[in-house]
This record gives sequence, C-alpha cells and structure tokens, in this order.
Amino acid sequence: MPQLQVGIIGFGTVGAGACEVLLENRDVIADRVGVEIVIRRIADLDIERDRGVAIDRSLLTRDAMEVIEDPDIRIVVELMGGLKQAKEFIRMALERGKHVVTANKALLAETGNELFDLAEKNGVGLAFEASVGGGIPIIRALRSGLAANRIQTIMGILNGTSNYILTRMAREALPYEQVVEDAVREGYAEDPPTLDVDGTDAAHKLAILIMLSRGEAVPFDGIYREGIMRLTPDDIRFAGEFGYSVKLLAIARHHGDRVEARVHPAMIPKGHILANVNDVYNAIYIEGDFVGPNLYYGLGAGRRATGSAVVSDIMDLARQLRSGQGRVLPSRGYARPVRSHIAIQPMDELVSAYYFRFSALDKPGVLSRIAGILGDHEISISSVIQMGREVNGSVPIVMLTHEARERSAQQAIGLIDRLDVLTDRTVMIRVEGAHR
Amino acid sequence: MPQLQVGIIGFGTVGAGACEVLLENRDVIADRVGVEIVIRRIADLDIERDRGVAIDRSLLTRDAMEVIEDPDIRIVVELMGGLKQAKEFIRMALERGKHVVTANKALLAETGNELFDLAEKNGVGLAFEASVGGGIPIIRALRSGLAANRIQTIMGILNGTSNYILTRMAREALPYEQVVEDAVREGYAEDPPTLDVDGTDAAHKLAILIMLSRGEAVPFDGIYREGIMRLTPDDIRFAGEFGYSVKLLAIARHHGDRVEARVHPAMIPKGHILANVNDVYNAIYIEGDFVGPNLYYGLGAGRRATGSAVVSDIMDLARQLRSGQGRVLPSRGYARPVRSHIAIQPMDELVSAYYFRFSALDKPGVLSRIAGILGDHEISISSVIQMGREVNGSVPIVMLTHEARERSAQQAIGLIDRLDVLTDRTVMIRVEGAHR
Repeated sequence: MPQLQVGIIGFGTVGAGACEVLLENRDVIADRVGVEIVIRRIADLDIERDRGVAIDRSLLTRDAMEVIEDPDIRIVVELMGGLKQAKEFIRMALERGKHVVTANKALLAETGNELFDLAEKNGVGLAFEASVGGGIPIIRALRSGLAANRIQTIMGILNGTSNYILTRMAREALPYEQVVEDAVREGYAEDPPTLDVDGTDAAHKLAILIMLSRGEAVPFDGIYREGIMRLTPDDIRFAGEFGYSVKLLAIARHHGDRVEARVHPAMIPKGHILANVNDVYNAIYIEGDFVGPNLYYGLGAGRRATGSAVVSDIMDLARQLRSGQGRVLPSRGYARPVRSHIAIQPMDELVSAYYFRFSALDKPGVLSRIAGILGDHEISISSVIQMGREVNGSVPIVMLTHEARERSAQQAIGLIDRLDVLTDRTVMIRVEGAHR
Repeated sequence: MPQLQVGIIGFGTVGAGACEVLLENRDVIADRVGVEIVIRRIADLDIERDRGVAIDRSLLTRDAMEVIEDPDIRIVVELMGGLKQAKEFIRMALERGKHVVTANKALLAETGNELFDLAEKNGVGLAFEASVGGGIPIIRALRSGLAANRIQTIMGILNGTSNYILTRMAREALPYEQVVEDAVREGYAEDPPTLDVDGTDAAHKLAILIMLSRGEAVPFDGIYREGIMRLTPDDIRFAGEFGYSVKLLAIARHHGDRVEARVHPAMIPKGHILANVNDVYNAIYIEGDFVGPNLYYGLGAGRRATGSAVVSDIMDLARQLRSGQGRVLPSRGYARPVRSHIAIQPMDELVSAYYFRFSALDKPGVLSRIAGILGDHEISISSVIQMGREVNGSVPIVMLTHEARERSAQQAIGLIDRLDVLTDRTVMIRVEGAHR
C-alpha cells in the first residue's frame, strides 16, 4: 500500500488526539483511503512531556521547520494555536506546495482569507474541519452536503465550556462564579475561561460558518459579542417558567447583502431542538432555502473528538492525492473568488423579542413607570412575573416583550436604569423564536 | 463558464424538486462549482402532467434511452424508483461511463453492491445522498466527516411518515387508525402507507448506513423489522409515565464480525436528543470510537429537501469533473473492495430492556403468575404500573424490565399469552437506554 507522510506542528491536546486516531485506527483509515498515513515528524517546544500517545520519540523535534521543509511531508498539520507564529508556519507550508490541516479558528476568523487565497494560488488545500464544532463535520456539510442551498440562518451552540456552565447553573440553581470554579477544577474550563465565556471563541467559529455559507468573509470585529457572566440562576429559572432555556447562541441571518452576526445569551423555546443540547455538547442549526431546518450535534471539543476531525481532513486530502488529482477542490467551497467583506447589519437594527429582569424597590407605581417608558419606545409587553419576595430590599420584575427594535430596547433600558426606584442594572436576554 | 449537461429519469416529486433547485439556485450553484449545470433531458412515462416547475417542454421525453445514450450527458440522475427497470437504466448509464445520482434506497439496499462494483469498474461515481434522511447529508458524514472512526452504533428515526403518526398519537392521544387516515388525507402518507409503517423503508435506509459504516454489505432480508401498527395511545402514555418517548428506530450496533440490525418501535428516555425529534423530521444518531455521539437532524422527505440532496451529489460530481480528475473517489468510501456480506446477529441473542403491557382479567394472583413466568426466564422487573380501571373486563398491567435476552422475553410472553387470565396479546416494546 502506498504511504503518505504527514508532519504535525503542536503536540498539545489536539495534536496528541490526532496522533492517537492515526495510530489506533490505522487499519480503518487505510481501508477507506487506500493509503497508509504515516506520522513522519512532530514539532513542539516541549518534547519531554508525556502526551499519553505511543509515539516513537525520534519523531519529535523542537524545530517546526523540520516539518515544513521536509520534502517527504505532503501534509502539514498545524495544531499549535495562536496567531502570529501559526500563520507564519502555515504560510511557509503553503508556499512550499504542502497541503495544510488546521484547527485554528482564531487565525481563520481573523485573517483566514489571506491564507485561503495563498492555498489556492499554490494549488493546495487548507482544511479546517476541526476549527468549528469539534468532531461535528459541519464544515463539510456547508461546503458540500448543503451546497445546493442558499443558507438563510445559522444558530449554534459553539462553545462547550459555556454550555457546560449554563447547563449546571440550570440543573443545580448554582451561581455563575461557583460553577466556573468547579469547571476549572474539573478541567472543563481554562483558568480563567475568558474567551469561552465572553463569546469570543463562539464568534470566531461563527465567522468561519458565515464565510462558508456565503463565500464572503465577515469582518471579525464587527460580530456583536456578549458573554454569559451576568446571568444568574434566577434568570435561568424565570426563563424556564416562561417555557424557555437559556443558551449562549451564535447567530447569523442573511438579509440581502447584509448579515446579522451576533453572539449572546438567548432564550429558546424548550421544544426547540437546540434547547436540549446540554453539557459540553455543541450543536449547529442551519436553515437552507431548499433543505429547510437541519441540525448537527456532537462533542464540541476534547482530544478524541477534535482528533477525529483533524484526521478526517488528512484522509480527504490523502484521497485526493491518491487519485492523482492536480488541483484540489476549493477549500472554502467556492470556485469563484471569495469576496473580502460582507457587511454586518448594525446591532441597533436588530428586531427581537426580549426578556428583562428589573431590580426595583417594592413600591407602588414602579411597574407602571417601567411600562410607561417601554410604551414610549414602542415596546409592548407579552407577559410579566412580579415577584412578591424581597431580596436585599428590592424585588425582581421579570417580563417578556413582543418583537421590538434593539435600539429602542437599549434606549428604554438606559432610561429605566436611571429611575430612582431601580436598585441594579437591568438584565436583558434576547428571545429567539424560530423553528420549534 | 463551462457547462455540464445532466439528464434526469423520473419526473415525479423528487425529480421535479431537483429541477427546481437547479433552476432557482443556478447562481449559487455556479458560484460554488464553477460550472453551469444544465438540464439537457428529462424522461418520464407521463410528460403531460404539470409538475409545477418551469421546464422547457422540449426537454421532456418518454424514452429513458434518450437520456442514457445522449453523448453530451455526463451525469444521469435516476429518480423513477422501483427495482428492476431502474436497475437496468443505472447499469446501462454506468456502462456508458456516465456518473449516476440516485435516491433509490430500495434498490441500493437490495442489490446495490453489484451496481457500486460496476461503477468502480467503469471509473465513475454512483452517488446516493438522497437515499437516506432526505436533505440530511448523512452519507457524506459517514463517508468523509466521520471516516477516521470505527462506527459503533447507528440509531435512526429514518421514516418521516411513521414519526409523524407517532407524534400525533402522542400529542393528541389518538388511535393509530385515525391518525393514519388523517395522514393519508393530508398527504403525509401514501395510501396504504405499508412500507413506511411496517419498517421496510427504514430497514432499506439502515442497510445503506451499515454498508457505509463498515464497508460490508448487509443481507437486507436479515434485518429484523417490526412496524408501529400495534401501538396504542395507551402504550405511548404509559411510556411517558415511565419517562420515555416511543419512536420507530432503526438500530445497528457492531459487535466484532457481526452486527445487530433491527427496525422496531422503541422507547427512548425523554432527555435523549432522539426523543425530541417529532413530526416528519428524521434524525440519525451515530457513535464513533473517537468522535463520540453525533446527531444529524432534518426533513427526511419532501420535494425540496430531497431535491437539495440530489443536487448536492450532482455538484460534487461536477467539481470532480471540472478538476479534471480521472477517477472519482470511491462511492462507498472504501478504497478496498467492499465485502459482500456482514453477518447479522440473530434477534434471539439481543440483550435489551423491555416494556410489556399485559391485558389481564382483574383477578387476584394475576400479577404473581405473570411475574412467576418472567422470573423463570430470568427476566427481572424494574417497575410496574397496575391500572385500577377496567376496560372491557380486563385491566392493563404495564411493566419495565431490566436487561434480558430477547429469546427469554419471547418465550416468556409466549407462555404468558396462553394463561387463561390474559384477555389479549401482550404488547412488547424494546427500551433503548444509551446516551442521554
């Protein structure tokens, strides 16, 4: 059986996972691809640490150039993460005519287009299944399985750490801080888990999905981001009473030549299939004009699942190399040039229903003052829970609104928060209705 | 832009859907593929009927050979259904070096291997995304996205009609017969819907998924099949009281060189993501050794969703043709020959938990006689609901068991059904625990 040599840069969690897949499933992989995939070299700054994989130590090097410049290596797998150095390594590999596989969502979201263009110029592939949704083959779904569709909507639970935190807050009625502490201790979250809980990681992944869905790159900094740090178990409980679950959602909706692109906590009806995605699982819900609603679900992170995605990319490239094909299929799924920018619809113009939790003094007339301001801004209330019980001298007033403009909602909350009867900043959660 | 000519055989629901996609999304498709896909000819016995697509009538022919023998047609799309004639057309197209796209699950499940081998011999593709799960790109997931995994478990809701019937029985507490009548009237079911409700259609799809997951064809007749016709709204309600939903599941589990392969009603815990798949939706749950649990969800049938899958296959073939690749990737995802038969584990050897509903006279000692027979067969009971209320002189006794052998369960029920205190045949539903 012919052999194909691959080199790996970055021997951390995902790198070790990819090696584990390649070694443990060598027979299945060869059966499917018709080529024996051989790990020729692994570069990492730390080559002493035990990674829990039975790798011949002579394959290890501290010098990434030994991977990039090895003439026998056809596929370079970048799993070191980070921006500047990783980009440089990928650039050099592509320029040497090597195919590249990466899991680096931050890099692809922020400056990916440049690298994709370089890959095309050099007639090689830049594959990135592992960059979104761990083991879920969502990149392939958008590039191939759903390719006959105009994609209209993408809604994803794209960050496993924050989903784990929200799930535990919901199940055990625990405050955010305590769950985060546990999650760090149990290894479900980094310390501190900033990019996971503030929406940045999910926004990176959303940028990649938008690019695939339209063939237009999205300016990463324009994606609205709001984290889960201000949510309380009370909010999750009130949401439950209204029939909703609270998730950190990454949402894109195409409107003509603009796209909504936002990451924030959102309430989704309990009957919606996304509402039942719990713990460290990820799910991506996609609507296409012909296929209708589609959902993809699985582990969004972890050594084994992400390793599986990395190796699936190596296998597809190996299949293409074996078939003797000169030029690979375009990495982004578009034969035409991918345009550099699609405009993001300003958040102000969003139309959404809202959940508000006001913290107010327990005095007569408070609700009418709040409702008055909402009414002035053309925000109509669909239901209210006013809690009788005082907490630190104030009562929560919780309500759901009908659809309103984000700009109006923000303005109204700004005014309400200045009322002397309000005791704390108002919590606002957007409500996504959508498909059952 | 270069053009690619396709010919379609069968202008029914799916054929018209595929044409609709090709016409309506012509621009998106060309952007992605870099080729203009042109419908050159459509064959159907009935070329008079209005199919609701704006097709130039001069493209229509009653003679399929005008598609198969047209030298300009590179891809033949078989959407006529049926076995013998469709097989003959596909065979002729493959022998003429044409790529073939089909949605014909019955044909592929029953004699697919022969056609796949023929396609390989002729260096062309035989694509079949639309054969399982409508618009859900599950074929690609198994062939490519999850290709680095040993697939361990497949559990699917693969028949939209029966899922629609079960959903309505559960929501409205209506009897099977009445829901079927409604479903036929509303166009959700054929009249009679035999192959949908008796498990045959789901078994066809399961056979295809097993073949992809192992590279070994499964003898279709060996797949155990049991339909939903004997379920009552009471069973669904009792299942709900135990915390389960009832679904028609297609299940495959690989055990060394044998595979469990069965289609039957099954109870799944309400928290399981499959339990929340309702109406005409399909979902396929897959466990791989590295990727862990994965789920794919979407519309399992219908003109638009299935049309989307057919066109995604045309697009992938067009991409390959455009890239000038001599040989396409193997249609089944295996570089090695696909073996002709994997052995199915006899149903007798299944180990499962069970739900039993006994119809018994309301007399003292009945439960102990039933429990005695179960005990003799080493079936232990995990919980019982004995209903106080008589229906036609008998009471339902409902129980869940711990895991037991299917052979023992069948033998015990055989004996119990012969007891003089039993008034009707016992209903038995297998319980799937699995992943939450």
